Amino acid sequence: MTSRIRELAAGTPEMAALFDDAATLAAALRFEAALARACADEGLVPKAAAAAIEAACREPLEAEAMAREAAHAGTLAIPLVAALRLRAGEAGRHAHLGATSQDLADTVLMLQAQAGRRLIEDEVDRLLPALASLAEAHAATPMIGRTLLQQARPITFGLKAAVWLQLAHGAARRFRREADEAIRLQFGGAAGARHDLGGRGAAVAGRLAATLGLPPALPWHARRDGVAGLAAALAILTGAAAKIARDVSLLAQNEVAEAFEPETEGRGGSSAMPNKRNPTGCQVALSAGLRAPHLASTILSALPQEHERGLGGWQAEGPVLAELFLLTHGALASMRQVVEGLELDPAAMAAKLDDRDAGESEALARAAVAAWRKGTD
Amino acid sequence: MTSRIRELAAGTPEMAALFDDAATLAAALRFEAALARACADEGLVPKAAAAAIEAACREPLEAEAMAREAAHAGTLAIPLVAALRLRAGEAGRHAHLGATSQDLADTVLMLQAQAGRRLIEDEVDRLLPALASLAEAHAATPMIGRTLLQQARPITFGLKAAVWLQLAHGAARRFRREADEAIRLQFGGAAGARHDLGGRGAAVAGRLAATLGLPPALPWHARRDGVAGLAAALAILTGAAAKIARDVSLLAQNEVAEAFEPETEGRGGSSAMPNKRNPTGCQVALSAGLRAPHLASTILSALPQEHERGLGGWQAEGPVLAELFLLTHGALASMRQVVEGLELDPAAMAAKLDDRDAGESEALARAAVAAWRKGTD
Amino acid sequence: MTSRIRELAAGTPEMAALFDDAATLAAALRFEAALARACADEGLVPKAAAAAIEAACREPLEAEAMAREAAHAGTLAIPLVAALRLRAGEAGRHAHLGATSQDLADTVLMLQAQAGRRLIEDEVDRLLPALASLAEAHAATPMIGRTLLQQARPITFGLKAAVWLQLAHGAARRFRREADEAIRLQFGGAAGARHDLGGRGAAVAGRLAATLGLPPALPWHARRDGVAGLAAALAILTGAAAKIARDVSLLAQNEVAEAFEPETEGRGGSSAMPNKRNPTGCQVALSAGLRAPHLASTILSALPQEHERGLGGWQAEGPVLAELFLLTHGALASMRQVVEGLELDPAAMAAKLDDRDAGESEALARAAVAAWRKGTD
Amino acid sequence: MTSRIRELAAGTPEMAALFDDAATLAAALRFEAALARACADEGLVPKAAAAAIEAACREPLEAEAMAREAAHAGTLAIPLVAALRLRAGEAGRHAHLGATSQDLADTVLMLQAQAGRRLIEDEVDRLLPALASLAEAHAATPMIGRTLLQQARPITFGLKAAVWLQLAHGAARRFRREADEAIRLQFGGAAGARHDLGGRGAAVAGRLAATLGLPPALPWHARRDGVAGLAAALAILTGAAAKIARDVSLLAQNEVAEAFEPETEGRGGSSAMPNKRNPTGCQVALSAGLRAPHLASTILSALPQEHERGLGGWQAEGPVLAELFLLTHGALASMRQVVEGLELDPAAMAAKLDDRDAGESEALARAAVAAWRKGTD
Repeated sequence: MTSRIRELAAGTPEMAALFDDAATLAAALRFEAALARACADEGLVPKAAAAAIEAACREPLEAEAMAREAAHAGTLAIPLVAALRLRAGEAGRHAHLGATSQDLADTVLMLQAQAGRRLIEDEVDRLLPALASLAEAHAATPMIGRTLLQQARPITFGLKAAVWLQLAHGAARRFRREADEAIRLQFGGAAGARHDLGGRGAAVAGRLAATLGLPPALPWHARRDGVAGLAAALAILTGAAAKIARDVSLLAQNEVAEAFEPETEGRGGSSAMPNKRNPTGCQVALSAGLRAPHLASTILSALPQEHERGLGGWQAEGPVLAELFLLTHGALASMRQVVEGLELDPAAMAAKLDDRDAGESEALARAAVAAWRKGTD
Repeated sequence: MTSRIRELAAGTPEMAALFDDAATLAAALRFEAALARACADEGLVPKAAAAAIEAACREPLEAEAMAREAAHAGTLAIPLVAALRLRAGEAGRHAHLGATSQDLADTVLMLQAQAGRRLIEDEVDRLLPALASLAEAHAATPMIGRTLLQQARPITFGLKAAVWLQLAHGAARRFRREADEAIRLQFGGAAGARHDLGGRGAAVAGRLAATLGLPPALPWHARRDGVAGLAAALAILTGAAAKIARDVSLLAQNEVAEAFEPETEGRGGSSAMPNKRNPTGCQVALSAGLRAPHLASTILSALPQEHERGLGGWQAEGPVLAELFLLTHGALASMRQVVEGLELDPAAMAAKLDDRDAGESEALARAAVAAWRKGTD
Repeated sequence: MTSRIRELAAGTPEMAALFDDAATLAAALRFEAALARACADEGLVPKAAAAAIEAACREPLEAEAMAREAAHAGTLAIPLVAALRLRAGEAGRHAHLGATSQDLADTVLMLQAQAGRRLIEDEVDRLLPALASLAEAHAATPMIGRTLLQQARPITFGLKAAVWLQLAHGAARRFRREADEAIRLQFGGAAGARHDLGGRGAAVAGRLAATLGLPPALPWHARRDGVAGLAAALAILTGAAAKIARDVSLLAQNEVAEAFEPETEGRGGSSAMPNKRNPTGCQVALSAGLRAPHLASTILSALPQEHERGLGGWQAEGPVLAELFLLTHGALASMRQVVEGLELDPAAMAAKLDDRDAGESEALARAAVAAWRKGTD
Repeated sequence: MTSRIRELAAGTPEMAALFDDAATLAAALRFEAALARACADEGLVPKAAAAAIEAACREPLEAEAMAREAAHAGTLAIPLVAALRLRAGEAGRHAHLGATSQDLADTVLMLQAQAGRRLIEDEVDRLLPALASLAEAHAATPMIGRTLLQQARPITFGLKAAVWLQLAHGAARRFRREADEAIRLQFGGAAGARHDLGGRGAAVAGRLAATLGLPPALPWHARRDGVAGLAAALAILTGAAAKIARDVSLLAQNEVAEAFEPETEGRGGSSAMPNKRNPTGCQVALSAGLRAPHLASTILSALPQEHERGLGGWQAEGPVLAELFLLTHGALASMRQVVEGLELDPAAMAAKLDDRDAGESEALARAAVAAWRKGTD
C-alpha cells in the first residue's frame, strides 16, 4: 500500500497531496493551534499557554511514528496530543481542551474536503464549457443515434455532447450543494455536548470555525447525512465522467471510428503492440466509475452509527471519502483532457446515414446549452 | 417472488400498491392517452383517433399477460401498444406517436415516484415533529452519553433526540430537493431527438407534462444523474431511520432499559418465548438500512450507460428504485410509530449517573429544534 | 410491488414460482409437519398430536392474511403457528416444539434455495456444452482480438467461446460447492441451544433434516458464512452470463456485425423502430449483472449479526437471496438461449484481418474444452 | 493519499509492505527476469540477452518516476519495460517477449496475493485454536443468550465461542479454496492467444510459473471469476472477524460487562476521557467489516469485461484487491489479539440468570470443536 503506482493510476498528484500524511498532520496541527487560540480568546486558557501550544503546532510531526502510534491507540488524536504536550511543556495540559478524537478527525477530513472540492470544481469549470463548445459547434453535425447498442435514428453530435453537458452539470450542481452542506467544523467534545468549556462552547466553536475557514455547525458526530450526501455526489460526478468515457470509447472502436481521444505523446500505447492507440483517458474514468458507487455506498452503510459517537462507522468514512475525492478528480481531469482535445470524424459519421433527419437534435442541443448558461438544468 | 410476505415485512401496503402491476399499467395507459391527446392538440393526430386511443386506454390491461409478453419482447411498450392498437382499430396506428419504450418506462416510473414521494413526505411530516417534541420535552433529562459503545459523559435525552431530528431533517431536505429535480416527464422518442413530431416535440412534451402533472424536461434517456441522486437520497433517509433504530434497540437492551418501543398488541412477540418483547419496529428499519445503500449504489453503477439509450442500465433502475421506495417508506413508517410512542425510563437513565454535568446538552438540543423550525439545519 | 412485470423482465416464471408466497407457505407447513413428526418419533410429542398437526399442515394458508399478520408480528412464524394451533385444537400446543422463528425462516429459505439450485444447474448443464460446441466448432475460425476496446491481434472465435466456457464453468463449480455447503437445515431453537427437547435435539434435527431432504447441521443462526458464500457465488454466475452478454452485444453492433442473438419472433423489437433488432437476451443478462453484485454485498454486509440471533441482519437476507436466485436464473436462461442459437458471420470476421496469425488460439481453445471435460478448470 | 495514518489504522504494516510500490516493482522485475530466462530456455531469446535482462532486473526502479510514467502511459508495463531496455542495451529488445501489460499486472498482483495469503493464514492458524480453546474451556459456563438484542434463554459462553469458531473456520476454508483457485500465473500475450512465441507458449508459461512459484494456467485476462471469488472470500473472512467484534463490543458495554478486550498499555484510550477503555480491537474489525463487502462487490461488478482484455475493469481490480488484503489482515490480527486475551466475567454472566437451563449448549459447543478438529464444518 501507500502505493503511488496504484494511486496515480487512478488519481491526480494534486489531489493525492491533499490527503497524504503531511497534509493530514498539518491540518491536525492547524486544528489544535486554532483551538488553543479560541479557548484563550474565550478566557478558558491562559494566553501564554495558547501561544506555547501554537508554537508547538508550527513544527511538523513525523508521519510514520504518528501512524504507528495512532494505530496502536486507536485514534490519531492520542499520540498527536501527547506529542504536543511534550513539546509545549507545562502549557501542554491546556491543549485539546473540550475536544475529542472525532472532532479532530472529522475537522481534518473537512479541511481536506474543502481543498479537494476546489480542485474538483476547477476541473468542472473547464469541462462544462468544453462540453458546451462541442454541443454548439456540432449542433447540426449529423451522426447515427444508437440505442440498446444498435443503430437507431440520426441525431447530431451536438445533441450527444449536450447530454454529456446536462449530466455533468447536474452532477456538478449536486456536488456543490452537498459540499456546501457537508463541509463544516466538527466540535462537540467527548459526548457531543461540549463539556468543559464553561458554557462557552458555541463561542469557541465560532472562533475555531472562523480561524479554520470552515462554517460552524452543531456537533454532527452521530448524524452523518452530510458526508453520505457528499460521498454520493462524488460518485455521481464520477459516473458522469464515466458515461462520457463509455461513449467516447465506443465511438473510438476501429469499426466505428467517429471520435478519438487526443493523441498525446507516450499515452495510450501498448506494451505488446506499440502502434495501438488505447483510450487511456476513458480507461481512467471507466475504472473510477466502476469503483466509486461502491465507495459511496460504504459511507451510506455507515449511517446507523451507535449512540453519541459510534464504533467502526465514522472510522471507516475517512479513508473511503479520501479515495472518492482521488477517483473523482482523476476521472474528471482525465475526461476534461479528452473532451478538450476530442478528435471527431464528421465524414465517418455522415457516411453511415441514408436518412439525414436528425429530428429536433439541433434545437435540443441549443436548449441544453442555454439552460446550462442560465444555471438551470 | 411477488411475495407479499417478503414485501410487507419490509414495506407498507400503501407503498407496495403504488408500484404494483395494476398501478404500473394504469400509469402506462395514462401516458398513452395523454400522448394521443397532446398530439391531437398539436395537430399531429386526428382528434377522432386520439379519442379512440383515449377510450382504449380507459380499460385496464391484464397484468399476467402483459408481464409475459413484455418479458418476451424485452420491453413493456411493445405488448401494451399492440394491445391498444388492437382495441383502437384503425386509429391505433396513431398511438405512441413520437415515443419510445423508455419514454413510457421512465414516465411510468416517475408517476409512481411522484406518488411515492407524497407517502414518504407524509411520514416525514409526522416523524420530525415527534422528534422535536422529544428533544424539547427531554432537553434537560440527563442520561449517560455513550461513545465507541462505552459510557462517556452525561448528556440529555433531548440532545440525543435532537441529533435524530437533525439527521432526519437533513435527509428529508435532501430527498425533497432530489425529488424536485429527478421526478419529471421523459419524452425523447427513438433516439432522444424527438423525431416524427414535425418539429412540435417541445410543444407535445409540454402538453404531455401538464396532463400528467409532471414537470417537463429535455429528454434524459442517457443522463441518469436525477434517478441516481434520488436513489441516494432515499438510502440516506432510510439510513436516518436506521440510526434511530440502532439507538432505540441499544437502549432497549435488558441491561440498559432506558427506552422502549411502544407496546403494541401482537407486535414484537417471539414464536419460542411468548413473553419476550422484541424491538420489531427497529428491526424493520435496521433491515432496510442494511439493504438500501446497496440498492442505491446499483443505480449509481448504472450511470455509464451506452450512447443515446443504453443496454441493461436503465432497465435495471426501475425495480431497484421501486424497492428503495418500499424500504424507505417501511423504515420511516416503522420508526415514526416507534418515536411517537417511545417509552422512556428517566429514572433508569439517572441511576447510571454520578456526575450530572451534561455540558451544553440542553442548549444544543434547543438550538437544533430551533434550526429545524426555521428550516435550516 | 409484487410486480410480475418487473419480475419477469428479470427472471423466469419457473424461478419466480419457487419463491412466491404459495411456495413459502407450503415450505413452512412442510417444516412444521416434519417437526411434529420428528418430535413424536423421539417421544417428545404424542403421536396423535403430531398427526393432528400434520393434518393441519395439509391445508394451505391464505397468503395475504399471513403476510399482513407476519408484518405486524415481526415474523411469519407467529401467525403461522397461531393458525396451526387454531386448526389443530388441543394438539396445537405441541406445534413448533423446540423451534424458533428463524428456524422456520431459514429452513424455508433453504428449501427454496435447494429447488432454485436445481433450476440453475439445469441451465448450466445446457449452457456449458453449448459453449464447448462453439469453442470446438470455431477453434480455427479467425477473427480480430480486441483489447481495451481496440483491435489488437487475431484470435479465433473458438478461443473467445472457450474463455466464456472457462468463466461459466469456474462460476458453476463455485456455485455447486457453495450450495453444497450452505443449503442445510436450520434448527437451533430460541437461542441456538436446542432448548426444550429433553436433550434429544440432535436426534430431532436429524429426523427433521431427513424428512425435508436437507443436510442436518449445527445451528447456524449467527454464522452466516454459508448464505454469504452462496450469494457471492450466485452473483459471480450472473457476472459470467453478463460477460458473455457484453461480448455478444458488442459483436452485434451494426458496425461490427460478427455475431448476433438468434432471431426470435416478437423478441428484440422496438416500440419506435419496428425493424430494429435489439439484443434483448443480452439486455437481461447485463441488467442482472449490474444488480447482482450489490445484492451479494448486502448479504456480506449482514455478516456481523448481534449475539445468538441478530436484529435486522438475517431478516434482510431472505428477500435479497430470493432476488439473486431470480436474477441469476434469468440471466443464465437468457444467455443459454443466445448461445444455443448464436448466429456468426465468419466472413465478416475474416474481412477485418490482414494478418491471419491467431497465435496459439486453437490450441488454447481445445485445451479449455478438454479441461472442462475433465472437470478441472 | 499514500497515507500511512489511514493505512495502519485499518491494516498491518506487514500486509501493507507486501503491496507497496517497492514490492510491486520487485515483483514486476521478477516477472520480466523470469520471462527472459524462460524464453531463453525455450530458444526464443539468446542466452546472453536473457542474462543481460536478468541483470537489468536486479537493480530496483525508482517508484515515484515509475508511478508518474505509468499513469501517463496508462499501464506500468510501458515505462518499466522501457527502463529495462535502456539498461539492457541491445539485449533489451528481447525483454517482455510474448507478454502484454495485463500479464505483468495480473502476475504481480498474484505474487502479492500469494504472499498476502500466507499472512492471513498465519493469523487464522492462531485465531481458530484460540476460539476452540474458549469454546472448550467455557463449554459449561452459563450466560444469557440474546436474540434480536433482547435476553432470551441461557446458553453457555462456550457455545457462543463455538459459533465464532464455526464462522471463522467456514470463512477460512472458503478463503483457502478460493486462493488455491485464483492465485496463478497470468501469461497470454497481446490478445490472450500467446502470439510471438513460435508455438512454445505453453512451455514458456510452464517455465515462468515454475520460476515464480505460481501455478500455471490458461490465460485468464477476460475471465475474472477467480479474483471475484477471492475478493468475496476475503470479505467473508473480514465479516467473520467483524461478527466476533460485534459480540465482544456488545458484551463489553458497561451495563453488560461480561467480556472485555485485553488491557493493553496505550490502547483503547480516549483523547477526552483518559480513563475510558474503548474496544479498539473491535473497532478495527467492525470498520473493516463495513468496508470489505463493498470492495468485494466492486470486483464482482467488474466481471462483464469487454472482449479479450477490457477497458477499466481489470484496472480497477488491483487497488481494490490490495485494500481487501489489508483490511482482512488488519481485522483478523486485531481480533486474534482480542480473542487470545479476552477477559471474561463468569460471575457477571451468572448473575443475570434465574433459569440455568442452557439447553444443549455444551454438547453443541463440543460438537463444533470436534468438527473443526476433523476439518469438517
